[in-house]
Amino acid sequence: MSITHATGYAIFDPKPGQYDFKLTKYELEPAEPDMVTVAIECCGVCGSDHHTISGGWGPLSCPYVVTGHEVIGKVVEIGSKVTEFKVGQRVGVGAQVGSCGHCKGCLKGNENYCVQPVHGYNTFWHNGAVHQGGYSTHLRAQERFVFPIPDALSSTDAASMLCGGLTTYAPLIHAKVSPGSKVGVIGLGGLGHYAVLFAVALGAEVTVFSRGDAKKSDALKMGAKHYVPTDPGFEKGLEREFDVLICTSSSSHLPINELLSTLDVFRQLVFVGMPENGLEITSQALSNNGVAVASSHLGNKGEAIQMLKLAAEKGVKPWVELMPMKDAAKAMIAIEKGTVRYRTVLLQDIESD
Amino acid sequence: MSITHATGYAIFDPKPGQYDFKLTKYELEPAEPDMVTVAIECCGVCGSDHHTISGGWGPLSCPYVVTGHEVIGKVVEIGSKVTEFKVGQRVGVGAQVGSCGHCKGCLKGNENYCVQPVHGYNTFWHNGAVHQGGYSTHLRAQERFVFPIPDALSSTDAASMLCGGLTTYAPLIHAKVSPGSKVGVIGLGGLGHYAVLFAVALGAEVTVFSRGDAKKSDALKMGAKHYVPTDPGFEKGLEREFDVLICTSSSSHLPINELLSTLDVFRQLVFVGMPENGLEITSQALSNNGVAVASSHLGNKGEAIQMLKLAAEKGVKPWVELMPMKDAAKAMIAIEKGTVRYRTVLLQDIESD
Repeated sequence: MSITHATGYAIFDPKPGQYDFKLTKYELEPAEPDMVTVAIECCGVCGSDHHTISGGWGPLSCPYVVTGHEVIGKVVEIGSKVTEFKVGQRVGVGAQVGSCGHCKGCLKGNENYCVQPVHGYNTFWHNGAVHQGGYSTHLRAQERFVFPIPDALSSTDAASMLCGGLTTYAPLIHAKVSPGSKVGVIGLGGLGHYAVLFAVALGAEVTVFSRGDAKKSDALKMGAKHYVPTDPGFEKGLEREFDVLICTSSSSHLPINELLSTLDVFRQLVFVGMPENGLEITSQALSNNGVAVASSHLGNKGEAIQMLKLAAEKGVKPWVELMPMKDAAKAMIAIEKGTVRYRTVLLQDIESD
Repeated sequence: MSITHATGYAIFDPKPGQYDFKLTKYELEPAEPDMVTVAIECCGVCGSDHHTISGGWGPLSCPYVVTGHEVIGKVVEIGSKVTEFKVGQRVGVGAQVGSCGHCKGCLKGNENYCVQPVHGYNTFWHNGAVHQGGYSTHLRAQERFVFPIPDALSSTDAASMLCGGLTTYAPLIHAKVSPGSKVGVIGLGGLGHYAVLFAVALGAEVTVFSRGDAKKSDALKMGAKHYVPTDPGFEKGLEREFDVLICTSSSSHLPINELLSTLDVFRQLVFVGMPENGLEITSQALSNNGVAVASSHLGNKGEAIQMLKLAAEKGVKPWVELMPMKDAAKAMIAIEKGTVRYRTVLLQDIESD
């Protein structure tokens, strides 16, 4: 019997500091031939969920939103054109569930840069149907955005890799990080922790830049070799040091010129995550060493599969806190207070009817 | 007999709108074994000259400055270690005359990104000696920063290629521009005109972005295929169109988000030239297509030689206005008024003693 509905924790009125999740039953989007339907086992909590339901990214596009885009679950239905998956298989779905399939990005294997992407929630399919996210019993995604999960990875470890992990892994690959590369990670939150773990797994020598010393011990435990508090003058002695800087900080007071001076010629500082404000960049700060400021959005399917394989092989172990899905509001408050160490995963607790 | 002095047009008191060049005799820096001494035949006028002597880039580092860093002349002296040049040969010197020789940039052939560069004027050698520029009878430069000039190029055509030309040519090469590439050039002044000429010479399809329609006819004569006035909505229909954008505009009101949307995935908008103010860049504007904002500084010696060869082979003909060196103030006023079409070259008129 075809699955038509899901039940999830929905927010109707985004505002900061108060998260009134209402258990809500809703109709899933129509199942297309290229879609996979997943019964959700657990779902990671991403900063994007907080930006969306606190109103930081503006009003909702839909009447209500079920957030969550780091989903692990079991395939319960496949469309007639699906070839990669079968019912019963454990899979993951990240922060994108669909793309147009025919733009330059999609055709060149960069479907994460599709001109008409369908994101993980607060979004519409090309036919107008609403798509809701993973704090729920079920979701659907196009096959291209569903990933097989290696047996060696637990579901709760794999979940937050699908957005947080991939978001930091893809720019490392794009910068050709390999054994001996020097990688700087700016900020040590959920994304920063993944940037460290994956850069280390790729064989890089990792330096963490953060305000103060509070996270030094954690950074070194994650495998970073150096920890640099961004006090005045921190950049001295680090000129032209790094092959790439992954910036996971959302601060608009970032010492951007000093950070840029630590990049080797022609390299990039890559923003991941989405600060709510911009940064003033001068041509001078970029031209001394011919560097660039970039931003990276998720990763493509090849990168996702490669990342999961590397995590399984190298035993990459994210630092995750588990809680039942009904405690999603607590997870939001923890993000606001900056107390998450370093990623939260919500466990399924809704009874399917 | 060794050359010890030069006579040049010097500015003692930088301020905008008033350019009191004083013919001044001064001691050249000591001639080192790796240095070439050049008797100057002509010198291009660059926006940097104006930024420096109008005070836009701040106070002078030296008591006075002789600007000019697009020099063509004849070799009159060579140091004992110079191997590439001989006395009497016609050569060019651009906006850099020295480097440390042992930093990462110098060692990897990116001497234009040396950590201790010696620029064309208002600058000191590592031993503290002052270096003055090309509105003069003579200058010295390290051999690495001296370029042979192909016979097919006139001195007055070659002069302004050495900074203005190279500054736009190097990022085109870095972006791997080749026949069929789509290149956007933002702003059509001295640098923009070179970006168009060299992108066309490399076989690219060139689009010029500029305010209003005033320069359309010139852009098309230079070989651009399209001209797009940056009126509201200009970016519609150009999403993901360009392989690189060369930004020669100094405006801080640039429609940067709209321009970035016209780049194909993973490509760059490269600032050349040096606006006096920064630009606010948001992560969102970069992440839609995974693009970067970069800045490029001159080019390396290999690129300079390749550029001059291409110019000779393809008959690249810059649009230059000629005037005697004593009219340097007129050239500055023309830059301020924006009436240069498109580059000025000053002809030697000082009698050597």
